[in-house]
Amino acid sequence: MENKDLLMIPGPTPVPENVLLAQAKHPIGHRSPEFSEIIGEINENLKWLHQTKQDVLTVTASGTGAMEAGIINFLSAGDRVLVGSNGKFGERWADMTEAFGLKTERIAAGWGEVLDPEAIREKLEADTNQEIKAVIVTHSETSTGVLNDLETINRHVKNHGEALIIVDAVTSLGAVSLPIDQWGLDVVASGSQKGYMIPPGLGFIAVSEKAWQAYETATLPKFYLDLGPYRKSTAKNSTPYTPPINLMYGLQAALKMMRNEGLENIFARHERNTQATRAAIEALGLPLFAPNNAASRAVTAVEPTTVEAEKVRSVMKKQFNIALAGGQNELKGRIFRIGHLGFVSERDVLTVVGALEATLRELGHETMANGAGVAAATRVLAYS
Amino acid sequence: MENKDLLMIPGPTPVPENVLLAQAKHPIGHRSPEFSEIIGEINENLKWLHQTKQDVLTVTASGTGAMEAGIINFLSAGDRVLVGSNGKFGERWADMTEAFGLKTERIAAGWGEVLDPEAIREKLEADTNQEIKAVIVTHSETSTGVLNDLETINRHVKNHGEALIIVDAVTSLGAVSLPIDQWGLDVVASGSQKGYMIPPGLGFIAVSEKAWQAYETATLPKFYLDLGPYRKSTAKNSTPYTPPINLMYGLQAALKMMRNEGLENIFARHERNTQATRAAIEALGLPLFAPNNAASRAVTAVEPTTVEAEKVRSVMKKQFNIALAGGQNELKGRIFRIGHLGFVSERDVLTVVGALEATLRELGHETMANGAGVAAATRVLAYS
Repeated sequence: MENKDLLMIPGPTPVPENVLLAQAKHPIGHRSPEFSEIIGEINENLKWLHQTKQDVLTVTASGTGAMEAGIINFLSAGDRVLVGSNGKFGERWADMTEAFGLKTERIAAGWGEVLDPEAIREKLEADTNQEIKAVIVTHSETSTGVLNDLETINRHVKNHGEALIIVDAVTSLGAVSLPIDQWGLDVVASGSQKGYMIPPGLGFIAVSEKAWQAYETATLPKFYLDLGPYRKSTAKNSTPYTPPINLMYGLQAALKMMRNEGLENIFARHERNTQATRAAIEALGLPLFAPNNAASRAVTAVEPTTVEAEKVRSVMKKQFNIALAGGQNELKGRIFRIGHLGFVSERDVLTVVGALEATLRELGHETMANGAGVAAATRVLAYS
Repeated sequence: MENKDLLMIPGPTPVPENVLLAQAKHPIGHRSPEFSEIIGEINENLKWLHQTKQDVLTVTASGTGAMEAGIINFLSAGDRVLVGSNGKFGERWADMTEAFGLKTERIAAGWGEVLDPEAIREKLEADTNQEIKAVIVTHSETSTGVLNDLETINRHVKNHGEALIIVDAVTSLGAVSLPIDQWGLDVVASGSQKGYMIPPGLGFIAVSEKAWQAYETATLPKFYLDLGPYRKSTAKNSTPYTPPINLMYGLQAALKMMRNEGLENIFARHERNTQATRAAIEALGLPLFAPNNAASRAVTAVEPTTVEAEKVRSVMKKQFNIALAGGQNELKGRIFRIGHLGFVSERDVLTVVGALEATLRELGHETMANGAGVAAATRVLAYS
């Protein structure tokens, strides 16, 4: 059917109708008092969402641009950094720090495994000369559906004292609690097409006072993503360069919705949808790719053995107009991924589980009882 | 009146209703075949608009980000560059090249004056060691309404042989003809909220084969704005990072409209609107800020002497809901600027001229005959 698509990928995520329509308003001048008011409201709500008193800076860029801003503003060529790498995005940040001439040490785990906080602790404790300037961690690894143990890793970084903790929270912000000020996270980067419930095009960077001190001495060359001017402009409810006005309209509307729902409710909804999805997948006799104790609340990766992952995606798309994500890089063809991040309701989860069961049946996957997936999801939703 | 705004600033520019509504569609996955088709259509139309056979690369960034990409991909720290500076944006590019450690020589002219191609020719001819690696020129200087003589400057650069010509075409692309391949321009950067008739958030960079050769040896560190991956992805109708899907919907719709109108018609419309605006301003007895032979086709700056520029803007806004731009930096309070770039019709020009005359009368500016502005604009529109 035409125009009947259901987007169940981990970004772009579904966008509420009122947010889509807010984006269809005519742009106004970005230097007008009216737009300044919008920026002011957005900035207040961004602080609320980030659980921080610090300014959260907004850049016109995709999530990769936000992460780059989070790295190049606080480090200098030759700085030693540890980069957690257990998927496509962790690997991307290691490539990035190498591109900027940072002495990059990968703390690696297999794709689908969780980063070992102990491996990071050992490196940090052995660094008695305090040479490690940053630990860079992908909180929710979108490519595998693994949620890394940021709280523990951060505790080790805090014990080190010198290193900054720089976090890719692209698919964790707005899905799980990330108490930035309470944990003392230094740099947290995210992107709009994820938990924010708006289309791609905006990146966000929360910056601690300690990171701003590092900014003073960091020497990597920068201009467009130099966060100094963004900090000054943000304090005046302005932007250093022309912002994507219509996306900002959408952001304003989406943040208002998030405040109405409330942080705890948002996190609880993601938790329920994650657990319901995982219970259904298990009940359908499919192997979950990420372990239960490290499940991303944004995306569930499934590694089917009795049917082909790409065939599952293909039938789901053609017969049910549901878009699932495939595997990336080494996981291409091996897994499919169900996004449940942002504007995703319990109803959507039941929908995708029902369609998945029909798809599996069509593909000849027989090791499941009729209705087992929806039944399992329903049990989670009823009791949580 | 509420919701009755007319945006007559040089960016963001007015957006057609069908483009606004295209942006209100639900995002689809950026790795889907459907989106790849959209990218393919956009890329073809971007080449058409740029009058080039080379790929035009699209980045998620404002115009400043596009210019940064146009500079850091093709140069190395210590490279000697000439930067034309006769306004806020020329000055910004000089600040930028300095931030990246380029040996920056400003070729300066007063704000409101045109760059002297002879000054650039002399520098280039004296450079017998071929040390100058790039000449960076703002084609249409948005802050002053001056159109620099890019064709002549480029001829001198071509005679030099070694230097690249890097052009900020942010408010000239889509307003005046910029035959990139015919002139042999190396790097041309622009932004979406200008001649493209869509909101801000996308930057564009056209790159010549000679510039790609320079890319091979350029050593400035880069990642998000490294154009190599963009080139590879563009060839496959893809993007290296998540593109701003809804802005791309808008871009697709706007480029289709531009093709329907035709390049020559678009340029002729901008020419007519520019000349009608300038004739009206003169007939109203107000001094034009930029000389007639160097008039930007995007924006007309006016430096009133009998009334205050900011009062003109304020009455235009309050009484007529017309947004004009003010002066920037050293021109703050001295000039006002009328945008006539992108989706601006002859009707809009007559509207703003009529409202301006009423405004001037209210402010006590008496040196004009009744209806002189509209009469002068009408004469231009009738005979051109």
